[in-house]
Amino acid sequence: LEAGRADDVTTVVGPLHHSDTGDVLEQLDHNERLALVRLMGDRFDFSALTEVDESIRLEIMEELPNAAIARGVAGLDNDDAVSLLEDLEPHDRNEVLSALPTFERLSLKRSLDFPEDSAGRRMQTDFIAIPPFWTVGHTIDYMRRERDLPDEFYQIYVVDAAYKVLGTVPLDRILRSLRGTPIESIMNTTLVLIDANEDQEEAARQFERYDLVEVGVVDENGRMVGVLTVDDMVDVIQEEADEDFRLLAGVGDEDVSDTTVDTVRSRVPWLVINLFTAVMTSMVIGLFNATIEQMVALAVLMPIVASMGGNAGAQTMTVTVRALAMRELDGGRLRRLIRREVVVGFVNGIIFAILIGVVTALRYGDVQLGAVIAAAMIINMIVAGTAGILIPLTLDKLKADPAIASAVFVTTVTDVVGFFAFLGIAGLWFGLF
Amino acid sequence: LEAGRADDVTTVVGPLHHSDTGDVLEQLDHNERLALVRLMGDRFDFSALTEVDESIRLEIMEELPNAAIARGVAGLDNDDAVSLLEDLEPHDRNEVLSALPTFERLSLKRSLDFPEDSAGRRMQTDFIAIPPFWTVGHTIDYMRRERDLPDEFYQIYVVDAAYKVLGTVPLDRILRSLRGTPIESIMNTTLVLIDANEDQEEAARQFERYDLVEVGVVDENGRMVGVLTVDDMVDVIQEEADEDFRLLAGVGDEDVSDTTVDTVRSRVPWLVINLFTAVMTSMVIGLFNATIEQMVALAVLMPIVASMGGNAGAQTMTVTVRALAMRELDGGRLRRLIRREVVVGFVNGIIFAILIGVVTALRYGDVQLGAVIAAAMIINMIVAGTAGILIPLTLDKLKADPAIASAVFVTTVTDVVGFFAFLGIAGLWFGLF
Repeated sequence: LEAGRADDVTTVVGPLHHSDTGDVLEQLDHNERLALVRLMGDRFDFSALTEVDESIRLEIMEELPNAAIARGVAGLDNDDAVSLLEDLEPHDRNEVLSALPTFERLSLKRSLDFPEDSAGRRMQTDFIAIPPFWTVGHTIDYMRRERDLPDEFYQIYVVDAAYKVLGTVPLDRILRSLRGTPIESIMNTTLVLIDANEDQEEAARQFERYDLVEVGVVDENGRMVGVLTVDDMVDVIQEEADEDFRLLAGVGDEDVSDTTVDTVRSRVPWLVINLFTAVMTSMVIGLFNATIEQMVALAVLMPIVASMGGNAGAQTMTVTVRALAMRELDGGRLRRLIRREVVVGFVNGIIFAILIGVVTALRYGDVQLGAVIAAAMIINMIVAGTAGILIPLTLDKLKADPAIASAVFVTTVTDVVGFFAFLGIAGLWFGLF
Repeated sequence: LEAGRADDVTTVVGPLHHSDTGDVLEQLDHNERLALVRLMGDRFDFSALTEVDESIRLEIMEELPNAAIARGVAGLDNDDAVSLLEDLEPHDRNEVLSALPTFERLSLKRSLDFPEDSAGRRMQTDFIAIPPFWTVGHTIDYMRRERDLPDEFYQIYVVDAAYKVLGTVPLDRILRSLRGTPIESIMNTTLVLIDANEDQEEAARQFERYDLVEVGVVDENGRMVGVLTVDDMVDVIQEEADEDFRLLAGVGDEDVSDTTVDTVRSRVPWLVINLFTAVMTSMVIGLFNATIEQMVALAVLMPIVASMGGNAGAQTMTVTVRALAMRELDGGRLRRLIRREVVVGFVNGIIFAILIGVVTALRYGDVQLGAVIAAAMIINMIVAGTAGILIPLTLDKLKADPAIASAVFVTTVTDVVGFFAFLGIAGLWFGLF
C-alpha cells in the first residue's frame, strides 16, 4: 500500500480517530511513516502526532518542511499545537510560527512563553466568558448564534470587564434553569483556578483532589487566559507516575520505540554510578581480606546479609518516594512513618535473624557463625529501614527528585553496612584480624 | 475541641470539601476520628470516607452502627456508596442494604452484583436518557422541569424503547442548537460504550485513549445501566500505576497510615522469598569454596559482577513491565524490543567489561584477573537484558501480574549467573579446581 496510492491510504487512515492514526504510525518503520504523512499531505491529521512517542514525533517533524508543519498546526487546538511546537528547534519553531495567521501565532506564542511543563503550556485558549448580568436565555442565545466556540467545553466562565473570574457555571446547570434566571444567581463562586506558571503536576493534583473536569487558568494579574481540561491532566498523571518508575530504575526518559543507541546512552550513566558504588563496596570487603582467607564461609554467606538489607531498604524507599510524590507526608504523618519504618526494620530484623541464624548454624554446624550472621542481619535491617526513609526525604529537602537517586544511595548503604557488619563482627568474634 | 462540642466541630468541618474532610480524618488518631464522626452524626458527609486510606475507612465503618452507615450511605452517589459497602463484611453489608429505601437498595445491589474492580462497581446509576424523536427544545424543557436529575452530567444518552443506546449528545452541542433541531440529527453515533463486567483498568484505558469525560455503561444485553465519569477513572489510573510500583518493590497493598503490624505482615512474604533466593545464590558461591580459598580477591570482586547485572536487569525489567501494563507491546514491537534489549546488554557489557577489566588489572597488577572479570561482565549483562525482558513476558503469558514477581526472578538470575560466571571462569583460567 505504501507504493504511492495516496487516495487509498487516505481512505483507510483518514476516518480513524487520531489515537488510532498514532498507533498506525508507531507500527510503521521510519520510511513508511514519512511516506504516509507526505502522501496524505493536508489530509493528514496532525493531532495524531501528539499520540506517538516523542522520538517518532521529532523524527517526522524534522523531515517535514516547516510550511507543511504550519499548515498542519493551524488546524489544531492550542494545547496540541504547543505540544508539537515545544519540541522543535527555536529556529524551526519561529519559522512555523511566522507562517501562521496572526491570531493563532499570538496565542501560541503566549502559551510558549510560559515555562516548560507549566499549566500555561497545556491550556487551551478557547473558552466562553460572559458578563455576570446576562441571563440564562441570553447565554443560550449567544451560544446558538456564535460560530466560533471551542470544540468541546464543560463550563462557562463569568468574568468582569478586566477578565477576572467571578464564577463558573457548569453546562448542566444552565440547561436546568429557566431562561429568565440571572447567571449570577446560579454560578459557583467557590473557585478553583490555576496559575498559568504553575507546574502541570500541581495542576493535575488539583484535578484529582477536587474531581475537576475543566478549570480556568489565570495569568499573574488574575486575568483569565485559558482552560485546562481533564483529558490533558490524565496524560500528566500517567506521565508523572511513569517518570517516578523510570527514575527509580535508572532508565531515564525512554520510550519502547527508542533506538539501541538512545537506549544505551540513557542507561549508561546510571550503570556508571552503580559501578562506582559497587567498587566502593568491594573495597569495604577488601578490608577483610585476611578474615575471609581464614574462613571462606564468610564469603559464601555475606551476600545474604547485603541482599536482605537491599530488599528491605527498597521496600521502605518505594513507600516513601510514592508518598512524597503524592504529597501525603506532612509533619505528623512523617514522624509516624519514620517511627514505623524503624520499628518494622527492627521486627523484620529479628524475624530474619532467627531464620538465617538457625539455617547457618545447621548448615555449618557452628552456632557461633549463626549468631554472627543474625547480629549482622538485625543491624542491616534497621539501617535499611532508616536509610530507605531518610535518603529520599533528604533528597526531597534538597529539592532533588527523590525518585532519581534514592535507589543507588539506599543499596550502597545496605551493601556497605551489610558486608561491614557481617565481616567486622565475624572478625572480632573469631579473633581473625 | 474533641471534648464533645458537637456544634463547634460541625461548624468547622461541615463546610469543607469532602477531600479536605478526608484529610482532617487522616490527621486525627483512631479515637479522635470516631469521636468526630459520632459528634457530627447525620451531619457528617460520608463521601469523605471515600477519600481516606482503606485501613482508616474500615476502622471507622466497623465501629459505626449499621443503621448510621445506612443513613450516611443513602445520601451518597451510587458509586461512592458502592465503594464504601464493598469493603464491609457480607453480613454487615446486607444489614445496611436492608435499611435503605427500596430504590437505592436495588440499584446498589445491582452494582454490587458486578465483579470486583469492574466498571459496574464504579458506575453511577443516575443518567439522562431520552428518545431519539425529541427536539432540543423538548430536551431542555424536560431538564428544566425534572427535579430528579444527576448532580453533574456532561452528556445525554439517546436510547430506544429497550434502553439500547443509539447515540450521545454532549451538553455543549445542545446549547448551540436551535430549539427545533431534532436530537437525532445532532447526536454522536460513533459510540464508545463500556461493558459493566469489564475491568476498571480497561475502562480507564479507554478514557485515556479517547479523551473521554463520561461514557455509558451497558449490561450483557446491551442495555444502558449507568455511566462512568472521568474523575473516578483518574483514581483508577493513579491506583494502577501505584500498584505496579508496590508490586515491583514487594510492599503489597500498603498505605502510609498502616500500622506497624500490618506493614510487617505485608512485607515479610517478599523478604522470605528473597531469603530463599539469597540462600540459593550463596550455595552457588559455596560450590567455589576451594577456588576462593586460593584467591581471596575473587570474593572481593564477585559482588561487582552481580550488582551490575542486577541493575541492568532491573532497567530492562522496568521498561518491559510498564510497556506490558500500558499494552504497548504487540508482535512487531515485541520482537524489536527483545532484539534491542539483547543488543543493549551486549553493548553495555562491552563498555563495562573494559572499564572494570582495566580497573581490576591496575588494582591487582594482574591482567588475567582483569580479563576474567571482563568476560564474566559481558556474559552477565547479556543475561540481564534477556532475563529482564523474558521473565516479565513469561509471567504475563501465564496470566500472572508481571510486576509482582519479576524483580525476584531477575535478580536471582543475575546474581547466580554473575557469581557462577565469574568464579567459574576464574577457576578454569587459573586452574583452581
